Amino acid sequence: MSYVCFDWEKRSKKCAVIGCSSMGACIAYTLAQSGLFDALVLIDEDTRLAGGQAADLGCVAPKDARLDIWAGDYTDLAGCSLIVLACGLCPVHETAARELPALNLPLVRRAAAHIAAHAGDAVILVATQPVDLMTYTLLHYSGLSPDRVLGLGTLADTLHLQRLLGRYLSVSPSFVDAMILGQAGEYATAIWSGLRICGMDVDSWRTLLGRSTDSLILHSLFDDVLCAASRCTDAKGHADFATAHAALTVAQAVMRDLNALLPLCTLSDGRFGVKDVCMSLPCVLGRGGVIARPEPPLAPTEQAALEKSAARLRAAIYEAEQSLYAT
Amino acid sequence: MSYVCFDWEKRSKKCAVIGCSSMGACIAYTLAQSGLFDALVLIDEDTRLAGGQAADLGCVAPKDARLDIWAGDYTDLAGCSLIVLACGLCPVHETAARELPALNLPLVRRAAAHIAAHAGDAVILVATQPVDLMTYTLLHYSGLSPDRVLGLGTLADTLHLQRLLGRYLSVSPSFVDAMILGQAGEYATAIWSGLRICGMDVDSWRTLLGRSTDSLILHSLFDDVLCAASRCTDAKGHADFATAHAALTVAQAVMRDLNALLPLCTLSDGRFGVKDVCMSLPCVLGRGGVIARPEPPLAPTEQAALEKSAARLRAAIYEAEQSLYAT
Amino acid sequence: MSYVCFDWEKRSKKCAVIGCSSMGACIAYTLAQSGLFDALVLIDEDTRLAGGQAADLGCVAPKDARLDIWAGDYTDLAGCSLIVLACGLCPVHETAARELPALNLPLVRRAAAHIAAHAGDAVILVATQPVDLMTYTLLHYSGLSPDRVLGLGTLADTLHLQRLLGRYLSVSPSFVDAMILGQAGEYATAIWSGLRICGMDVDSWRTLLGRSTDSLILHSLFDDVLCAASRCTDAKGHADFATAHAALTVAQAVMRDLNALLPLCTLSDGRFGVKDVCMSLPCVLGRGGVIARPEPPLAPTEQAALEKSAARLRAAIYEAEQSLYAT
Amino acid sequence: MSYVCFDWEKRSKKCAVIGCSSMGACIAYTLAQSGLFDALVLIDEDTRLAGGQAADLGCVAPKDARLDIWAGDYTDLAGCSLIVLACGLCPVHETAARELPALNLPLVRRAAAHIAAHAGDAVILVATQPVDLMTYTLLHYSGLSPDRVLGLGTLADTLHLQRLLGRYLSVSPSFVDAMILGQAGEYATAIWSGLRICGMDVDSWRTLLGRSTDSLILHSLFDDVLCAASRCTDAKGHADFATAHAALTVAQAVMRDLNALLPLCTLSDGRFGVKDVCMSLPCVLGRGGVIARPEPPLAPTEQAALEKSAARLRAAIYEAEQSLYAT
Repeated sequence: MSYVCFDWEKRSKKCAVIGCSSMGACIAYTLAQSGLFDALVLIDEDTRLAGGQAADLGCVAPKDARLDIWAGDYTDLAGCSLIVLACGLCPVHETAARELPALNLPLVRRAAAHIAAHAGDAVILVATQPVDLMTYTLLHYSGLSPDRVLGLGTLADTLHLQRLLGRYLSVSPSFVDAMILGQAGEYATAIWSGLRICGMDVDSWRTLLGRSTDSLILHSLFDDVLCAASRCTDAKGHADFATAHAALTVAQAVMRDLNALLPLCTLSDGRFGVKDVCMSLPCVLGRGGVIARPEPPLAPTEQAALEKSAARLRAAIYEAEQSLYAT
Repeated sequence: MSYVCFDWEKRSKKCAVIGCSSMGACIAYTLAQSGLFDALVLIDEDTRLAGGQAADLGCVAPKDARLDIWAGDYTDLAGCSLIVLACGLCPVHETAARELPALNLPLVRRAAAHIAAHAGDAVILVATQPVDLMTYTLLHYSGLSPDRVLGLGTLADTLHLQRLLGRYLSVSPSFVDAMILGQAGEYATAIWSGLRICGMDVDSWRTLLGRSTDSLILHSLFDDVLCAASRCTDAKGHADFATAHAALTVAQAVMRDLNALLPLCTLSDGRFGVKDVCMSLPCVLGRGGVIARPEPPLAPTEQAALEKSAARLRAAIYEAEQSLYAT
Repeated sequence: MSYVCFDWEKRSKKCAVIGCSSMGACIAYTLAQSGLFDALVLIDEDTRLAGGQAADLGCVAPKDARLDIWAGDYTDLAGCSLIVLACGLCPVHETAARELPALNLPLVRRAAAHIAAHAGDAVILVATQPVDLMTYTLLHYSGLSPDRVLGLGTLADTLHLQRLLGRYLSVSPSFVDAMILGQAGEYATAIWSGLRICGMDVDSWRTLLGRSTDSLILHSLFDDVLCAASRCTDAKGHADFATAHAALTVAQAVMRDLNALLPLCTLSDGRFGVKDVCMSLPCVLGRGGVIARPEPPLAPTEQAALEKSAARLRAAIYEAEQSLYAT
Repeated sequence: MSYVCFDWEKRSKKCAVIGCSSMGACIAYTLAQSGLFDALVLIDEDTRLAGGQAADLGCVAPKDARLDIWAGDYTDLAGCSLIVLACGLCPVHETAARELPALNLPLVRRAAAHIAAHAGDAVILVATQPVDLMTYTLLHYSGLSPDRVLGLGTLADTLHLQRLLGRYLSVSPSFVDAMILGQAGEYATAIWSGLRICGMDVDSWRTLLGRSTDSLILHSLFDDVLCAASRCTDAKGHADFATAHAALTVAQAVMRDLNALLPLCTLSDGRFGVKDVCMSLPCVLGRGGVIARPEPPLAPTEQAALEKSAARLRAAIYEAEQSLYAT
């Protein structure tokens, strides 16, 4: 009998997190508790910080799991199945947000060279802010395949929206098909035209439950998501937990080879008329990275919003390149 | 057939975390991901901060789990099965460490009154630093039963030591019986006399594996634990992840009624000749709090170290009371 | 702040399985290992068998979980959140299959009275064969609400089809929306018109992956499911494992209140033009049973097949009633 | 920095079960649901039965896991990390029990050759009855290392006793150190001298809880275990579920490299004065099989009981060899 079984079980369960300030450390903590990995290396140019974070993670792991966590350097990237890029600063207040690109871009460029040298066939996940620009930067300077370089764009907000919708619509979030696409952050676009609950549109679902839909309430849930993000930034600087939880979702899809449909920041390839920027679009993610890029039909307003996102991001890339030449 | 089955399944799965700065938020994040709870309330005098943290946790929960997280107030303590006290500042550097008691004591005293008023039969877990003094303070001002007021004293360090020992001794950490007792922090005492690997002493175990024991290496693992704690404090201020992981261990024992043997900071009741302070001693922890307080035999040096811990803690309590009268 | 949190956490985690031969015992084993329950009672008119199965389950439970398993009687149904009806014989060979209704119907009728008397607000899951007729019988004689009486009709086959499709289409089964509806067994109907992969139709999905769809292969997967069921019946008498796994899926939806969309055997209420029989149709299942009954559009051949299923089942009900009067 | 991390993550997650009647199938079902494996091959000389069982397992796996299950042949043993031997008959009634060795021995001998040829470095777990004799037989005819050939002797009974003790002593079973050793079945020996609850002896534990120990009750729990085993055999023929759960415990220790202390049937190497039989003694089990064989002190009656077990087993081996020569 000719029977080909999966060979991916022989992939390593090693992961690296580059950048160990608050957000990177929180991602490392989450991955350490996930049981997905048995080796986790923390890398930071501030080796004292990396050592401190590794020390803080010394007792962390699922009971009955073996897990090695240590502060290492770029050569430790060898053999990793997943590399998370979380270096750089996070936007603490509005001014900082404007200066982030100039601050973080050189860091990502430097990391890109090391990753290209050591990463083998790892999937690279970018969490550094602003994530759309930084994913583009990493892609550009590493020369890696666009299938393997992903950014945590609108995923956390999408997961949040799914939970709020599940609550409003009396259903487990895992039965809510909802996506936020485009530029990450305040300009993101909720794709209401594609919203499905157990395969149904919202009105049919609510009717089934014997209730009418208040579409004002429905749409306000997206405002709640955006508002939560900004309330979070105002109060504490950066959405570390939301970001770390989104990173866990990506890590599960990669390590269990789920071929899961997720909104991820990747190089646009002409889908939706958008090209040559990185922004969040639907991706099918498995062990080797993105294996397919769906292009579901959009409402005209949604299409227009994505194009606007793309234009804004292209301008940001241009600006960043100028400033790089200038330095 | 007369058959009495457990009735505890009808306990609520509601938890509260009081204090939402870095450490409290990290505990809340960990408990949100644990699947142990379906309602999680964040309480902080800085309501903007509590709201920001709740916003950051909006997308966080196991897939297919229902979980409500919100910023609330002390009346939300009603109906909780577990309340975590994490208010106050953490020691960022040495000077701060000395001033912590004076800074955090009034906060804990204030919280004690609210907890006494609303907590019902919840188990209270203290994470505020310095934890031995704050556990004593909460107990004193709340008037709650010492069975239900616990502090995260040496638990994180104990879990860390178990992992290092498991690694050195080639065994899963869950088969390592090791404990750190006494005052939390640099003065804690590793109970080498009680160390057992799969029920054996270390030499027998190592002999079984065909290796000799280097007791210098063995004891150095405890130094590694203390050193990790201080490296962590130096680099980032406070061991948020280790503390949160220890809180998870306590939450599991309470919510699953494990009657687990853990080192916990509780009121000493004369065991080991120690009285009227709170410090870490072996406790058996279940849904209703501490149900038994074992008193294993100690080596004379270990006994002496615990007595020293107690004396130091009693002095700290005295000093704290003086300063309270002064104010 | 007015905030209503879930109150279902206070439901009991008690389950009963009625009928302890091979299939019922396998369901009990699966639920014992699930961690969903902390009390599990086995009921069988053959008390020696029930005792033997309970004895076999004495060591079975997740580590660190408390679980009581015992052989009881119908009064133990009190306080259950889920009751599984698995009494009666299973079809060992073709002749037996024809005689099953007459053999199992009196058993189910007898159980119905006990369940009505003791079941409180439990969800009742019917696994006794032939499941469509037995679900109807239980409903009829217990007088319970159709929302709370479910049969394991085409669920196991649906889960099997989803796994085969996931494999053929390179995607995790949880992203495959596929259903088998109608009469359980060889006459079941695969609803190809509703097949979605990550929200897409199959052709779009395969195109995305750079492959063409061979719809012959695709449809043969449904034959594989039916063929597996019959190969299983031929070789061992009854699909105990598949049935037990389907029961686990239902138990998760009920105990975690997932409001999950599943094909379940329930009383048809006019949907798809079908009335007054029990057969598998899409249901949304939560802690209180079925909360909604979707009616997705079907292809004409699918609609016709469902109507044929209904006609066949109505004839079976009529025949069963006749034979009951005769006795 | 020289840092050696685990390399075992690259082991395959492939498992084979040889023997697909009731017990073997139940083990396969349990391992399929465990998430420990992604390839599971069923092997039986009755290929129709193997196919039927594989068909019954077609829908079984954790959600979001990839798992291939198929009916194969001995060449499929290649690349397995674990091989379970469950071929042969089970004792349905007393007469059958006496004839089991003669019936199952040739089957195991035949399997031994295939396993030796294809098994590579897999761990081999014997479940065929009578397990002590069959483990010896497999070891003898395969020529494999005694470190890698284990039998499920008293493990299920040990796990059962731990649960009963945990219940009587108000503690999670995972804190109960109790073992049953020697010949599997009715002549097994409970090692009361080594019983520890959270590292304490029973009296100290009960005193802590404010109760006195009734040692009659305590010892009767072991009778309950033996009685459960025989009630199970009387009622249904064989303890399939208990055996399958014990197999899961072994699979976890191997696949997660736990180096767990378990009573396992292995070749006695002179420990406790016992040589050249296979019976259950304490073993430390990891990914590569048994890595250490502890020899805890026993009470004289326990020592005597083990010697009796050994004598009985040696007689059984002698008898089996005679009958083999005769044929």
